[in-house]
Amino acid sequence: MKYQVIIIGGGPAGYTAAEVAGKAGLNVLLIEKNSLGGVCLNEGCIPTKTLLYSAKTFDSAKHASKYAVNISEVSFDLPKIIARKTKVVRKLVLGVKAKLTSNNVTIVSGEAQIIDKNTIRCGEEVFEGENLVLCTGSETFIPPIPGVESIDYWTHREALNNKELPSSLAIVGGGVIGMEFASFFNSLGVEVTIIEMMDEILSGMDKELSGMLRAEYAKRGIKFLLSTKVTSFSPSLSQEGIRYTYKPMLENEPSDCLSQPEESFGETDRLLLSVGRRPVTKGFGLENLHLERTERGAIRINAQMQTSEPNVYVCGDLTGFSLLAHTAVREAEVAIHSILGKKDSMSYRAIPGVVYTNPEIAGVGETEESALAKGINYRIVKLPMAYSGRFVAENEGVNGVCKILLDEQERIIGAHVMGNPASEIITLAGTAIELGLTAEQWKKIVFPHPTVGEIFREVL
Amino acid sequence: MKYQVIIIGGGPAGYTAAEVAGKAGLNVLLIEKNSLGGVCLNEGCIPTKTLLYSAKTFDSAKHASKYAVNISEVSFDLPKIIARKTKVVRKLVLGVKAKLTSNNVTIVSGEAQIIDKNTIRCGEEVFEGENLVLCTGSETFIPPIPGVESIDYWTHREALNNKELPSSLAIVGGGVIGMEFASFFNSLGVEVTIIEMMDEILSGMDKELSGMLRAEYAKRGIKFLLSTKVTSFSPSLSQEGIRYTYKPMLENEPSDCLSQPEESFGETDRLLLSVGRRPVTKGFGLENLHLERTERGAIRINAQMQTSEPNVYVCGDLTGFSLLAHTAVREAEVAIHSILGKKDSMSYRAIPGVVYTNPEIAGVGETEESALAKGINYRIVKLPMAYSGRFVAENEGVNGVCKILLDEQERIIGAHVMGNPASEIITLAGTAIELGLTAEQWKKIVFPHPTVGEIFREVL
Repeated sequence: MKYQVIIIGGGPAGYTAAEVAGKAGLNVLLIEKNSLGGVCLNEGCIPTKTLLYSAKTFDSAKHASKYAVNISEVSFDLPKIIARKTKVVRKLVLGVKAKLTSNNVTIVSGEAQIIDKNTIRCGEEVFEGENLVLCTGSETFIPPIPGVESIDYWTHREALNNKELPSSLAIVGGGVIGMEFASFFNSLGVEVTIIEMMDEILSGMDKELSGMLRAEYAKRGIKFLLSTKVTSFSPSLSQEGIRYTYKPMLENEPSDCLSQPEESFGETDRLLLSVGRRPVTKGFGLENLHLERTERGAIRINAQMQTSEPNVYVCGDLTGFSLLAHTAVREAEVAIHSILGKKDSMSYRAIPGVVYTNPEIAGVGETEESALAKGINYRIVKLPMAYSGRFVAENEGVNGVCKILLDEQERIIGAHVMGNPASEIITLAGTAIELGLTAEQWKKIVFPHPTVGEIFREVL
Repeated sequence: MKYQVIIIGGGPAGYTAAEVAGKAGLNVLLIEKNSLGGVCLNEGCIPTKTLLYSAKTFDSAKHASKYAVNISEVSFDLPKIIARKTKVVRKLVLGVKAKLTSNNVTIVSGEAQIIDKNTIRCGEEVFEGENLVLCTGSETFIPPIPGVESIDYWTHREALNNKELPSSLAIVGGGVIGMEFASFFNSLGVEVTIIEMMDEILSGMDKELSGMLRAEYAKRGIKFLLSTKVTSFSPSLSQEGIRYTYKPMLENEPSDCLSQPEESFGETDRLLLSVGRRPVTKGFGLENLHLERTERGAIRINAQMQTSEPNVYVCGDLTGFSLLAHTAVREAEVAIHSILGKKDSMSYRAIPGVVYTNPEIAGVGETEESALAKGINYRIVKLPMAYSGRFVAENEGVNGVCKILLDEQERIIGAHVMGNPASEIITLAGTAIELGLTAEQWKKIVFPHPTVGEIFREVL
């Protein structure tokens, strides 16, 4: 039997591709080696959000008196927090499976091996397909720092399943994953240190907001070492923790040994490595397809997610573009639409980025940094979140900011928010950006009052 | 000195008109007899939301164990809840004032009297103006039920300032105001009864969702008397409460006395009247303008909010259209744009309605009921909120639903959500409706994952 679509990988890209194709009546095979839902559902977006919501509930209880609610004693149960996470993930994985089977997708469990673009082997079985959609995702990048092999480090996976609170936690990499775990463990009372090579956390987000978030968490006790490079790891002398050495990053390494910056060292109970992720390109026979590559080594694709082989598509983290589940979902829709002959193309103009700390920060479109780099003339409008009545009603003593970038035609080209629920309202700005709305056009939309989202109308 | 714009009333319509006009460089006078911000800010939208947020914090604490957070004892302090409300309102009123004065708006405190369309008296002073914008708002309608004059009832105003928890509360009118107070007092442990003349609460909202919300609150102990008419009030015999009689509403009152439905009676500690609001049309000389009226008695206005006198505009509740602050805000913008000669017109196609219960419900555009009444062919798509991974992560054991109406061209014409934060995400649907997006167009927007808002992409 020949499938119309074979999909390798069952994460957000793969399951979306399978669902859309199945719904359209195509004969679809999906091959997944681990659990349906991929990293996002099983050990990424969703499980972190359940943990963070428990932490948020704990934080809210600690600050309830600000809203005239008195709570005498509050504590948390980490094993139960982890158990709930596992339960939520299981429920959602079953939901994905149900959605696929109800759309007649054939699911095969195992490691796919590409023989050629129409022939995929999985274990003993060989499948024939007309179109191939590659959604193999990404994996944690373990930096080759001397000594890393000698220590018992965490990646997000271990951090998510850990049932015993560490006394201290050092996090190497202050990106989204690093900051979300920092927020979680800080809420639960763990001493957290973040070591980041860049001069600010959350690279890619608006730098001003990232700085504000860092300042907020510094107040809550997180220690930040910016522009700092970890130079070695070793088990601590007591064997109960990890010792790490670090030194400042210099723009130009001095050749003169004497002026080398001095190394410092730290000790930590637990260590989380979250310096980044990279596409999974090996182990499934990708090389057998001889796909064209870009100068930077990525698989060359067009706006329909099509590779140099017209019937081979690439979606999700494997593209190396944005490594976000929602990008993957949209890419998968575009790829299947292309297979179906429906006109569609991928736009990266308005891909939101969210950091689920408390407060959340979220951004979409251009940042000041990206606009400057591209030579776009822009102007900024900005207001504290306290200009939203609802924000004031629900955020006693909490600050936030909303910042919008407008181009010379007064079109919305970027929006950045710090303050809950930034994650939910940023889509409003994303919509305005994707549709190319001007400030005047956007202001013709009626926003319900009172809502936090109104800040967008207020700021314009 | 002659003003370019005189505005009567400083609620959302009035202060928005003043701000927009002032920002555009017009010479603006705003006359307000009470406090800037109007009913919405001083005794409506904002104060109720501060109270409801305290109740939500209290509820969250009671249910914290669902998220593995243990709280031993939780209580609330009603006088402090009220004090915080007052503080938040004061802060926001000052904010409105600051915004107006920074835009060079002259604010006069007192009762305005219209002499003619260019001459307004306030106390001893007489002001000349080119354009007049009427934003006098609405007031609580007290139903002429026998005995109402003999009892000490609450309107929303007293309910907002009450510092002593009643043992029981009867609410006449199960609209938005009634339901929000019902939710608040139910959270705090008060025995609440709602008496509603219609066969469902929340007239105007999607009936299915209103019914689901009612069922949820019935489970939490609120007693609902639907299709029921209050026939009399009297002080209770003990003089410590209120006695009320009621009977079922009948479609056709029988002429035969014997088949009249029987009256029942109830006793309640406190009674809240929330049967509706009506425009304030008296007491400020409106009659001196001789404005054209519609058949139903409302002031006739065009899509620029202009009356039969081209330089007289009406915005906000006084129009009698929607009695919502966000409608007023947009109407005020349209009116001032018209004065400024900027092309703009009011659209009522996508005015969201929100009920800030817990869970919230929100809707925008057509309901099934309104679509049927207009003879629009529509189809419904609907999903439980559990299809949003984030909703599942943050709403343990809580249900919700998302329902969308599509017309024959697959355009989004209505959207209705039960589940937090419906108030914030409904604007996404409002945007789609206002812009006339089809399902396919809407799905090209990238929604961040995981968010509750994704339910809209999921359901389509």
